[in-house]
Amino acid sequence: MNLDAQWITGFVDGEGCFHVGIKPHPEMTAGYQVLPEFTVVQHERDVQVLYALKAHFGCGVVRKNHGDRMAWRVRSAEHLRQHIVPFFVEHPLKTRKRVAFQKFARVLRIMAAGEHLTADGVAEIRRITAQMNRGDTR
Amino acid sequence: MNLDAQWITGFVDGEGCFHVGIKPHPEMTAGYQVLPEFTVVQHERDVQVLYALKAHFGCGVVRKNHGDRMAWRVRSAEHLRQHIVPFFVEHPLKTRKRVAFQKFARVLRIMAAGEHLTADGVAEIRRITAQMNRGDTR
Repeated sequence: MNLDAQWITGFVDGEGCFHVGIKPHPEMTAGYQVLPEFTVVQHERDVQVLYALKAHFGCGVVRKNHGDRMAWRVRSAEHLRQHIVPFFVEHPLKTRKRVAFQKFARVLRIMAAGEHLTADGVAEIRRITAQMNRGDTR
Repeated sequence: MNLDAQWITGFVDGEGCFHVGIKPHPEMTAGYQVLPEFTVVQHERDVQVLYALKAHFGCGVVRKNHGDRMAWRVRSAEHLRQHIVPFFVEHPLKTRKRVAFQKFARVLRIMAAGEHLTADGVAEIRRITAQMNRGDTR
């Protein structure tokens, strides 16, 4: 299944989720681990669309989500930076999910600079993602 | 906001709903009224996307749905036949929602022939939509 860039943007405007987890992690200097994640969830009957997304972007994994739902999930910060972020910079989302994406990309820039390993960086990421999770994503 | 055809198809693959209601109606010969409806629901913060869809297709209404959700809704069988069906014939959906769309289009053809006014036609529509509602739509 070949996917048109605009189809992908429309589908992600509907079904995509940009999320940044912040998890306590005693072995990290800042005490926390930052876990960015881009996900598209579908009923298992449409799993072929998730595999088509995976093939199009050349990254991520397709896994069982909850019950009869499947998810295509990209968690590697490097893959997110190299494959996901440039795509949605070139093909902007049209819903308010665009705002969540921009914050997501900002967190990835902070991580690329290694600032997520400092307490200040984690505080900054926490500030950004608190806004993200106030209803900009699903 | 200009919408690309492929973006619309991707967005509707995610968020669109093709539905056919069958309601008892004592004044109809067959005793039932057939109510096809195409809907896209969004959080009210993205109502501008619904207005852009309405403008693109030149039909339907944008109304409050439930709580903080808004819906763009096309109920006119004529508008569905003239504006919605030809679009998704030209730009096929990629998820299993395509199957729901095909059944939806079939019901509209039955209605165009006036067969929904007969008991046999209603029975046929009921058979088609029973399949539609077994998980092909949301």
